[in-house]
Amino acid sequence: MIFIGEKINGTRSKIKQAVIERNSAFIQEVAKSQAESGADFLDINAGTDPERETDDLIWLIETVQNVVDTPICIDSSTPSAIKTALEVVKHTPMINSINGDQKRLDDFLPFIKERNCSVIALSLDESKSGMPKTIEERMTVLEKIFKETRKIGIEDKKIYIDPLIMAVGTDQKAGNMAFDCIRTIHAAYPEAHLTGGLSNISYGLPNRSLINRTFLTLAVAAGMDSAVVNPSDTDLIESLYATELLLGRDRFCRKYTTAAKNNFAKK
Amino acid sequence: MIFIGEKINGTRSKIKQAVIERNSAFIQEVAKSQAESGADFLDINAGTDPERETDDLIWLIETVQNVVDTPICIDSSTPSAIKTALEVVKHTPMINSINGDQKRLDDFLPFIKERNCSVIALSLDESKSGMPKTIEERMTVLEKIFKETRKIGIEDKKIYIDPLIMAVGTDQKAGNMAFDCIRTIHAAYPEAHLTGGLSNISYGLPNRSLINRTFLTLAVAAGMDSAVVNPSDTDLIESLYATELLLGRDRFCRKYTTAAKNNFAKK
Repeated sequence: MIFIGEKINGTRSKIKQAVIERNSAFIQEVAKSQAESGADFLDINAGTDPERETDDLIWLIETVQNVVDTPICIDSSTPSAIKTALEVVKHTPMINSINGDQKRLDDFLPFIKERNCSVIALSLDESKSGMPKTIEERMTVLEKIFKETRKIGIEDKKIYIDPLIMAVGTDQKAGNMAFDCIRTIHAAYPEAHLTGGLSNISYGLPNRSLINRTFLTLAVAAGMDSAVVNPSDTDLIESLYATELLLGRDRFCRKYTTAAKNNFAKK
Repeated sequence: MIFIGEKINGTRSKIKQAVIERNSAFIQEVAKSQAESGADFLDINAGTDPERETDDLIWLIETVQNVVDTPICIDSSTPSAIKTALEVVKHTPMINSINGDQKRLDDFLPFIKERNCSVIALSLDESKSGMPKTIEERMTVLEKIFKETRKIGIEDKKIYIDPLIMAVGTDQKAGNMAFDCIRTIHAAYPEAHLTGGLSNISYGLPNRSLINRTFLTLAVAAGMDSAVVNPSDTDLIESLYATELLLGRDRFCRKYTTAAKNNFAKK
């Protein structure tokens, strides 16, 4: 399971405040906590106005890299911000995100190929109808994306597909829809990864972390192998260890028993 | 989900002691606690020596029925003990259990039919090789059982099939084997129920309740609709509510949100 740590995101008010105040101690605490909990990438989103986003993103990346070695997931929709960020990242990063929009593909794919980045691909086409409703709409967008990534020579295994999980609180079928999407996409692109945020599924309902971790168990069984999460959420991590054990992916139960001894911190 | 409360079992030392001392207050507390937590049946197993089992079973059933109205699951391998117990049960009971052994089928099926009992059917043939290793062995036993139950006129929906869950600690494939068994059996006997104890799966491993509830989530997705459990295990129950919500079985999320308000006691 590949975890993308979600905490350093300027759309969260505490992070935004720390960015504006250049409070590096606060940011570094959050970064260290996620890295020590076993995040494979740290998502970094400045979340500030376009005119200062690049400066904030660079400050965030350098601040984080001063204390942890975890690769960065550069989270921005601005090609120029990402290009500048690519000049300061130490390790091969992930880019968050592309989608089926041709202009974004044209802007992003060349530097993703050149720098051998991993990339999150949302299964939507923002220039068209917005959020997809059916599996077929998602598959149409993904066909377009993979046609372009394969044409330029980006390997499927560098692509982290986000199937776009909807809220079960507003659509009773959203859970089954997500599992069906994951199964269908996994069958069509077996070398690619399947990722996504978990929190949408539980939007508007009580005890959200319970729904999120139960969703993760069922999603992993369907083929999800990555998630954008808080890696310090022990309830989620222990649930994941038990899931991988039960799916026969833990030889001699070694990972589970070792993690249990360490109270299920991911590392 | 149909819950069979597992706690009143004479193989547990506290229950055995209460049976021998005729400590009705203790037994009644356990019975009330399971009934209030929403058990659909209360399993009652005297667990004592054959020469006193019938007396103990009758005492247990009468003691329990004096305080709760939940139907009883009579748990014994002795036909005479079950027949005597059938004379004192107030509600249509469940019998635990039959298997592919012809003698047991001949002994048990007539009174199961006559009293319209539900019955747990273990997918093993004790007169043959003992515990089954493959799905095929289980299916062969079940074919034999259903041939007999159908011949005598017992409806499939009265049968609670136990696929016999093995320990993932001794066989890494035990989880996947269980899910495959559940899917295969559910497809072959869609009107029958699928039940079983959860604790085998986690035998010998730490944090067993974590493994058990994660197993239940995946087993329910595969087609399990009943379990022999402690219905007061809130961690298990909340996990089950989230599972049914995510599988699209909770219209307008009503069951989940109501349960969350009541802190996930089943009722």
